[in-house]
Amino acid sequence: MQVLPPALTNLIEALGALPGVGPRTAERYAYFLLKHDTQVSGRLSDSLLHLHSGVSYCKKTFAIISSDQELSDLYTDPRRDKHTVAVVAEPFDVVALEKTGQFNGTYHVLGGLVSPIDGIGPEQLHIAELVSRIDEDKVTEIILATNASVEGETTALYIQQQLNQAGQDVKVSRLARGLPIGVDLEYADQITLGRALEGRQTL
Amino acid sequence: MQVLPPALTNLIEALGALPGVGPRTAERYAYFLLKHDTQVSGRLSDSLLHLHSGVSYCKKTFAIISSDQELSDLYTDPRRDKHTVAVVAEPFDVVALEKTGQFNGTYHVLGGLVSPIDGIGPEQLHIAELVSRIDEDKVTEIILATNASVEGETTALYIQQQLNQAGQDVKVSRLARGLPIGVDLEYADQITLGRALEGRQTL
Repeated sequence: MQVLPPALTNLIEALGALPGVGPRTAERYAYFLLKHDTQVSGRLSDSLLHLHSGVSYCKKTFAIISSDQELSDLYTDPRRDKHTVAVVAEPFDVVALEKTGQFNGTYHVLGGLVSPIDGIGPEQLHIAELVSRIDEDKVTEIILATNASVEGETTALYIQQQLNQAGQDVKVSRLARGLPIGVDLEYADQITLGRALEGRQTL
Repeated sequence: MQVLPPALTNLIEALGALPGVGPRTAERYAYFLLKHDTQVSGRLSDSLLHLHSGVSYCKKTFAIISSDQELSDLYTDPRRDKHTVAVVAEPFDVVALEKTGQFNGTYHVLGGLVSPIDGIGPEQLHIAELVSRIDEDKVTEIILATNASVEGETTALYIQQQLNQAGQDVKVSRLARGLPIGVDLEYADQITLGRALEGRQTL
């Protein structure tokens, strides 16, 4: 005997595929959608249906773009400095950096990080395309803006080696590591604090 | 200049309508769906589209049923005892009680709780239908299985008054309040502990 009808259990199962969504949360979402009129679920259904067809990747920077475009606006905009390239792992990292309002260069999305455990080698990332951009765009600085994780550090190191091997005369920098704003010194972990000491700045 | 294409921002907005989903979580869900093939988002889209048309409410118990049914299986099943009715606020409370495997009666879903703040009066709940069921089904016991919240208690009290006024000779019970299993006495709040004292059982 089924307690819930298939139309509801199907939705609960489909919602349960989302990252971090367990059966209870999926039930909560499903019941919310059921209680609201068809407009709420219809809008979600519709945007899901048009997701993949409406999204494409910039041929140059591999950022997410609208499928009716060829290149990212953040690349083609003449106000953006093509000589400075921020290298990020995932497309949403572009959004995070754009929110600071402090970066005026262009981006290069790797499409992941080197991770032997997950079977992701450097050849699966857009590293060759980054090396080609140095000549094409006369790049003078590459900012390696990958996460401060093992994978992020490994990927940054690999890219630096590739650039050296290619004999490119380009400045390579890394995002500063240190104390996040608003965090007390006593609560900072020792690796972060160690990095903050290493990177101390003269006043 | 738009950092993300409309196909993606539309989905992020639609996902942000779900309860407890902020912009960051919506972005995470959307990016997950974008990275996976169209089958995952297609399945979700499809189940959303068929949600309202596939779900109906039992004419007798107001539990959620498949739209090709008239009455809930939990009501029509001859093995279920129609003389005992558990009164719950929402359809998913039925699922929770069924999971215990300890209830063999039928259900009555009120469709909410009395809540003056939210503008929900008792006339909006299926209370009159509950009173009619007493004669129709020869109900001998009504278990008020509403939450231990102010709204739950108010609703339970109101139903009890209605049953008294209707002059129905029916046993009315309430779920036991007390210490949840696995919780230490010292960590229980004082109201729960007070209820546990009140409801103490002779060994």
